[in-house]
Amino acid sequence: MAFDYSGRLERLKDLMGDRGVDVVLLSAGADLSYFTGYEAMASERLTVLVVTIDGEPVLLVPELEAPRLEVGPFEVVAWGETDDPVEIATRQRRFPERVAVGDHMWSAFTIAFQKNWTEAIWVPASTLTRELRMRKDRIEIEELRRAARGVDLVMGRIQDEVRFSGRTERDVARDLSAMTVEVGHDTAEFTIVASGPNGASPHHTPGDRVIERGDIVVCDFGGRWEGYYSDSTRTFCVGEPSVGEAEVHGLVQEANQAGRETVRPGVPCSEIDRAARSVIEAAGYGEYFIHRTGHGIGLEVHEHPYIVKGNDMPLEIGMTFSIEPGVYIPDRFGVRIEDIVACSERGPDTLNAADRSMVRVD
Amino acid sequence: MAFDYSGRLERLKDLMGDRGVDVVLLSAGADLSYFTGYEAMASERLTVLVVTIDGEPVLLVPELEAPRLEVGPFEVVAWGETDDPVEIATRQRRFPERVAVGDHMWSAFTIAFQKNWTEAIWVPASTLTRELRMRKDRIEIEELRRAARGVDLVMGRIQDEVRFSGRTERDVARDLSAMTVEVGHDTAEFTIVASGPNGASPHHTPGDRVIERGDIVVCDFGGRWEGYYSDSTRTFCVGEPSVGEAEVHGLVQEANQAGRETVRPGVPCSEIDRAARSVIEAAGYGEYFIHRTGHGIGLEVHEHPYIVKGNDMPLEIGMTFSIEPGVYIPDRFGVRIEDIVACSERGPDTLNAADRSMVRVD
Repeated sequence: MAFDYSGRLERLKDLMGDRGVDVVLLSAGADLSYFTGYEAMASERLTVLVVTIDGEPVLLVPELEAPRLEVGPFEVVAWGETDDPVEIATRQRRFPERVAVGDHMWSAFTIAFQKNWTEAIWVPASTLTRELRMRKDRIEIEELRRAARGVDLVMGRIQDEVRFSGRTERDVARDLSAMTVEVGHDTAEFTIVASGPNGASPHHTPGDRVIERGDIVVCDFGGRWEGYYSDSTRTFCVGEPSVGEAEVHGLVQEANQAGRETVRPGVPCSEIDRAARSVIEAAGYGEYFIHRTGHGIGLEVHEHPYIVKGNDMPLEIGMTFSIEPGVYIPDRFGVRIEDIVACSERGPDTLNAADRSMVRVD
Repeated sequence: MAFDYSGRLERLKDLMGDRGVDVVLLSAGADLSYFTGYEAMASERLTVLVVTIDGEPVLLVPELEAPRLEVGPFEVVAWGETDDPVEIATRQRRFPERVAVGDHMWSAFTIAFQKNWTEAIWVPASTLTRELRMRKDRIEIEELRRAARGVDLVMGRIQDEVRFSGRTERDVARDLSAMTVEVGHDTAEFTIVASGPNGASPHHTPGDRVIERGDIVVCDFGGRWEGYYSDSTRTFCVGEPSVGEAEVHGLVQEANQAGRETVRPGVPCSEIDRAARSVIEAAGYGEYFIHRTGHGIGLEVHEHPYIVKGNDMPLEIGMTFSIEPGVYIPDRFGVRIEDIVACSERGPDTLNAADRSMVRVD
């Protein structure tokens, strides 16, 4: 997938001018991919794109990784194993006043840069890069839709193909990871299988617990598909749920729908959170919804915009994010239902379509 | 695997005293695991262990991840989705003079900490933590040996079980990743399959190139096994190598052996690099060995000590690292042979044992 990297870099420079930023430093990660197409390896060997307000961007790479690079709208400088890449990078600009550094750049590198540019003010690069990355173009939305459909396919196959009872969470997670790759993802990046009381831990790591008949099981997984992420959650029941469990599931489903239906250009992110949360609060379960309603998604599984109280940024066409309300009852069970939604001119464009009801599994 | 986290934290505090460090901040990653046993998720939600020179360590975690934690020799503080965790963390210490921040902590967090502690001097935490982590105890070496044996098992199965010719690098990489998990690793973390001319790119990403008879193929892979990493490389030939290819392979094998045989307590890291490199240089291939000879390994696949020119740190008993000389001939092929070695009282304890000769595959 070839994007217009020159255009993106030009828009970044425009933003740098607006914000008085002299230098942007982007190391391995999504920002670097977004502006260059290069998927660098994060390691103790620094890869960094140095974008100065008035020069050609320079991509510094470890010499042994230089053969991985394709040409792009930047100069490539390969540094050798006994060179100091930070020293080489700082030669690109003398005495910058304001430096924007990639949010995920390793702090050891930032500290080294700070020793060279002692007078600069440091800001996270996402203050600039999110302005570009948050608004997906049509191609990016179609990439996200393809990944979402992949994970939907897996969700749809679970009832027929995955046995739960008598197996450990880890076993089920392995099946889901394998299927995630099988349907076409390049990698399965995360797989939560949280059964029974473990479901009350939203980020539970699948473990040795043997799943039993009657368990409610939260399955939250996704992967990368040519750079773009999928991320979806459905909550299953091994056999029949109790009345209380079914009630909580219905509530979360309603909250998911309320959140999605609120999506349209101009609505603040916080309002999506409020719409989903108020359904759960009205039913008296507010204290059990212990996380924000969602997160942006694209080249990263979590990115801007965040769908959370306090974020009053208005939605714009092309923003893509999760809506994933949940209820977590300590020592008993949890329920979460998560879809990826794009904000379109007409309102919500929900990229996931798998059955949101509590599907029974064996 | 339960380690003595209290003892490790005590030794960290001793080092903080020696170096005049008031606060150590460790976010998700190997340092945090080493001192607490907690495997946090790296994300925009900050998890951070705050170790102050004179108080009980405090582990800040996002509220939704608090259920994942077990008790340990630290206080746990869960922060909610609308709290500011950096502000909470900085309350643990007023006006620190010197702060050591985890090397991999996201820069966005470090910049936020720097806004709260404006007068502090910032140093990478590895300047302290490597003093502890570099010297593995007997249990850690056995963990690394188990992982190494796992990857050896996969290497040993390749000749009989993996077909190369007519398949893409990506296909072969998938087989190797699947086998890495099958033998017992928790995850396959990286898999390089670099065939023919792609072998000249040391960190090649397996792609669509169809492997042909006569190709030399570098296979470099490993995974995590209960927290500890394996990492090994062997170079295969699809059918028969040419005389020149066999000669280069023999040379690299000799360099690998020379590097390993030089390992003993007191020898500088740079001397291991020199020993391996001089074999390749003497044969006139020095310009084609474009990387350092090795890297430490443990809870991270790359960690201290680095086996590189300029690192004159003497080896000590319990240090574990790779020895992985290579020769990379642009547009033609590459060869690399990598073993993990522990420095023992008696000299090298090579954890990998798979056949180092150029095994023929179909």
